[in-house]
Amino acid sequence: MTTDIDARLEELGLTLPEAMAPVANYVPFVQVGNMLFVSGQISKDDSGPIEGKVGAELSPEQGAEAAKNCGLALLAQVKAACGGDWSKFKRVVKLTGFVNSTPEFGGQPVVINGCSDLLVEVLGDAGRHSRSAVSAGALPGNVAVEIEGIFELA
Amino acid sequence: MTTDIDARLEELGLTLPEAMAPVANYVPFVQVGNMLFVSGQISKDDSGPIEGKVGAELSPEQGAEAAKNCGLALLAQVKAACGGDWSKFKRVVKLTGFVNSTPEFGGQPVVINGCSDLLVEVLGDAGRHSRSAVSAGALPGNVAVEIEGIFELA
Amino acid sequence: MTTDIDARLEELGLTLPEAMAPVANYVPFVQVGNMLFVSGQISKDDSGPIEGKVGAELSPEQGAEAAKNCGLALLAQVKAACGGDWSKFKRVVKLTGFVNSTPEFGGQPVVINGCSDLLVEVLGDAGRHSRSAVSAGALPGNVAVEIEGIFELA
Repeated sequence: MTTDIDARLEELGLTLPEAMAPVANYVPFVQVGNMLFVSGQISKDDSGPIEGKVGAELSPEQGAEAAKNCGLALLAQVKAACGGDWSKFKRVVKLTGFVNSTPEFGGQPVVINGCSDLLVEVLGDAGRHSRSAVSAGALPGNVAVEIEGIFELA
Repeated sequence: MTTDIDARLEELGLTLPEAMAPVANYVPFVQVGNMLFVSGQISKDDSGPIEGKVGAELSPEQGAEAAKNCGLALLAQVKAACGGDWSKFKRVVKLTGFVNSTPEFGGQPVVINGCSDLLVEVLGDAGRHSRSAVSAGALPGNVAVEIEGIFELA
Repeated sequence: MTTDIDARLEELGLTLPEAMAPVANYVPFVQVGNMLFVSGQISKDDSGPIEGKVGAELSPEQGAEAAKNCGLALLAQVKAACGGDWSKFKRVVKLTGFVNSTPEFGGQPVVINGCSDLLVEVLGDAGRHSRSAVSAGALPGNVAVEIEGIFELA
């Protein structure tokens, strides 16, 4: 069921970004047994980083679009961890979503839904996950959203 | 030792809330092997969400009471994950506690102790856990506290 | 390869702090199978807590030095969890780094590199890890950095 994920992505008109390699002494993911820990993925699209504070420069909808891009980046890392073979993927376990927002913003769930909805749209039930959605005080390079994930491999 | 937890809750005069079902494409918990990942639980009681920033509208003690309610919600989710059978529960592994506070607030441990103390009061040694206690920049719907947890099942 | 870590620390002129015992109903670490969850370690050195907001009172470089001290504290907890026997240690899995910063600060990766670089300097490839680097709204006692970690034991 998870082996036609590339086809599903194409059907949805979605393209995974290149799995980014961190530029420091950390790595994009670490696997322990069947658990895969993926580093926090920041919001960026083909034009570059998606920046700004939700509740000020960005609307919740723009925040959700940023979170969707974090989701695509997470999927790109998972695919890389599977060596491109989606049959090695089992399910999404846990997301922690950090929103760059004003101190008064209360719509973190709406923003992180941009990632949650993408994962379920692409992966079906295997995309359903536990999660936390909070605001960070600030994020790297003023990006709008950063999301890390734990995944189960087959 | 963990099978009389319902009796212990009653003895302490505590009632678990209904295990809340998230309203989006995520789920309250995901189990991988004997590890249970529970979604971030926001502070609410019978009257509704407990809102406000600690250090401004709320005192540290009010924050701790909010965190206690997060703890009750976590226990409700764990019980649901166990199908109501506490003998399937083994221990609390890890909490991450997010406090909605002013930028100057430094009493996050006091606030999250409201949850930590509850878990040990109810579960004894099985309630002792590793944890982080930090402030979020903001929380969903301006709730005072959000706490996620990792638990070990038998 | 990981058994001469004490020698490597000495070679680098590094001394691990005493593994701090939390002062509340939580514990420094919990082991589940071969996974070790270490509580958030706050920035402190021999002189006491390293306090201040990065982007205001502290420069990114000072933040990185604070993060390095969090890394030493994490190593001290891992060593304690191994009963002092580094042959029981396998690798660093995941860090979550929280920076106490101004809302405008965007250099969280530079700050948390202080910890990431230390771990790789001391542990070699076993120190490479997945991670997230975000700002917290505030941290306990106004410390500059708090970092939690997940580690794999042998």
